[in-house]
Amino acid sequence: KDRSTLSITDYVKGIRNGDRSILAKAITLIESRNSNHFKMSQQILKEILPFTGNSMRIGITGVPGAGKSTFIERFGTELCNKGRKVAVLAIDPTSTISKGSILGDKTRMENLSREPNAFIRPSPTNGALGGVHRKTRETILLCEAAGFDTIFVETVGVGQNEVVVRTMVDLLMMLTITGAGDELQGMKKGMMELCDMVLVTKADGSNKQKAIETKSQYNKFLHLLKPVTRGWIAKAFTCSAVTGEGIPMVWKVIQKFFTVVDNNGYLMERRNEQTKEWLRSSIMEQLEHSFFQNKEVMLRLPLLESKVTALSLPVSTAVEQLLELYFHEIKKI
Amino acid sequence: KDRSTLSITDYVKGIRNGDRSILAKAITLIESRNSNHFKMSQQILKEILPFTGNSMRIGITGVPGAGKSTFIERFGTELCNKGRKVAVLAIDPTSTISKGSILGDKTRMENLSREPNAFIRPSPTNGALGGVHRKTRETILLCEAAGFDTIFVETVGVGQNEVVVRTMVDLLMMLTITGAGDELQGMKKGMMELCDMVLVTKADGSNKQKAIETKSQYNKFLHLLKPVTRGWIAKAFTCSAVTGEGIPMVWKVIQKFFTVVDNNGYLMERRNEQTKEWLRSSIMEQLEHSFFQNKEVMLRLPLLESKVTALSLPVSTAVEQLLELYFHEIKKI
Repeated sequence: KDRSTLSITDYVKGIRNGDRSILAKAITLIESRNSNHFKMSQQILKEILPFTGNSMRIGITGVPGAGKSTFIERFGTELCNKGRKVAVLAIDPTSTISKGSILGDKTRMENLSREPNAFIRPSPTNGALGGVHRKTRETILLCEAAGFDTIFVETVGVGQNEVVVRTMVDLLMMLTITGAGDELQGMKKGMMELCDMVLVTKADGSNKQKAIETKSQYNKFLHLLKPVTRGWIAKAFTCSAVTGEGIPMVWKVIQKFFTVVDNNGYLMERRNEQTKEWLRSSIMEQLEHSFFQNKEVMLRLPLLESKVTALSLPVSTAVEQLLELYFHEIKKI
Repeated sequence: KDRSTLSITDYVKGIRNGDRSILAKAITLIESRNSNHFKMSQQILKEILPFTGNSMRIGITGVPGAGKSTFIERFGTELCNKGRKVAVLAIDPTSTISKGSILGDKTRMENLSREPNAFIRPSPTNGALGGVHRKTRETILLCEAAGFDTIFVETVGVGQNEVVVRTMVDLLMMLTITGAGDELQGMKKGMMELCDMVLVTKADGSNKQKAIETKSQYNKFLHLLKPVTRGWIAKAFTCSAVTGEGIPMVWKVIQKFFTVVDNNGYLMERRNEQTKEWLRSSIMEQLEHSFFQNKEVMLRLPLLESKVTALSLPVSTAVEQLLELYFHEIKKI
């Protein structure tokens, strides 16, 4: 069926049946800026909500070249072989600024994309930063309703990306390689403070020994950090997506993580906090849009801006005047 | 005169005459949460605005123990001896979270505080994060109108403090010491990207040679960073607040910086951008307050939060309902 002929019931049924083609169409609906699409997608979300939440939401971050895609390809395929259903989403909050996705084309995960139990979705493009968040969060929910029990949210660890991903996943892992250089240290520390585990990838061949040493260094450092997840101490591990060594251990650690946070109640607590924070930030995003897109505000703003920069009006007074104008406009609607 | 008997004219005259006691009272007015005080302070600001902007606004950041207070004490005193009027403000955005100022008591700058040309004001306490920003920005303006031509805004370089200070100063310098350890590297890199100069302090006695080596290491690294100020390449220097060595060079570099950004127009451009951004963030802060303090919103929010966390309502739908309620309430006013 074409997207335009699908009803809400068609979407919900298709998603619940794990139909990847309908799932993909539903995500496209969520990503649309059309207001009818928005209403429809919200209706779909409402109906599938009771079937969401039953997945491991795993964030994967790391600098470019850390081997994220190669790892996900191998790990995801092994999980599919174990009978798990794996969805891979990419989030690229910087793309709206750099005007191009830094995550590139997800279709390069060729083996994984051929798995019947896998679903790969590239980064949502265009739209505001907040829009990207909403779309990724809602896409996670759709995937869960479609039966995917393992969701990978991949991002490039530059700037604030890992902070964003941290707000939507249960477990965050950082991938790294040996000899990434001292210059990267700064970037890494910010990431490491948010991570539940560190994976030193490409631990094979002549690089294996170095990878083990790098792992030890990370462990020393991780030991000093305050845990980001209650009851869980982050550790580093090595693995190779080529030989497969270390991959079963990664899976064991992830399973242990979920046992711990399930038992101590932190999984539910974190998800509830994430949802509340999402609600709060969505409200602020909508208010900001409503304010700065208001026609009268848009007309008045440049004048007041020039007054405050010319030091003829205090900023707080300009704020007062603009809010008064905005509230006056709201009353007219 | 007691604060309660001072009229707006008294304040404006006192400030314009460089009366430090009245200046201090005006800042207290700005820091007050009383709405009458707010109105009065806005009126004062409006009248003194034409006399603002004529200072070097210099941010000073660095980890605890980097020697910030000792440096400011020495440097500030030397500047006073040169006939400059020096105001020292502290900003401590984290104090609202940690419930206690990490900057401690500014009165420890004993020599500087005795200078007739110096004015030292501790960190504004309590109030929201945004409140601290507004108060510090407006305090800078009051100090300028009172004739202070050199304003130091001091902050502890942890978390996001230096990002905040960057938005309100012309020049940001980072103070550091030798052997601050590799573990601090991460924190430092974030800072360094925002800095116009780095000072390796405590370059005296047996520590001098090490300080010079540290300076060279910083210079190598600074060289790789994108300049935060157009036309200016950040460099590292050594100095000692004990021997005074290097302090005249710091002043030379600062003067050169201001010549460069004055000539290439970036000083004005940056200040205008800072003011516009301040306007924008103040609006959002007010809107957030107006929304979340609205009685009906406060009554409804917990119910909708529990619905979204219980997966019985999509977040976007809850946002829609809350905004509808809020706008309805605005219309009633």
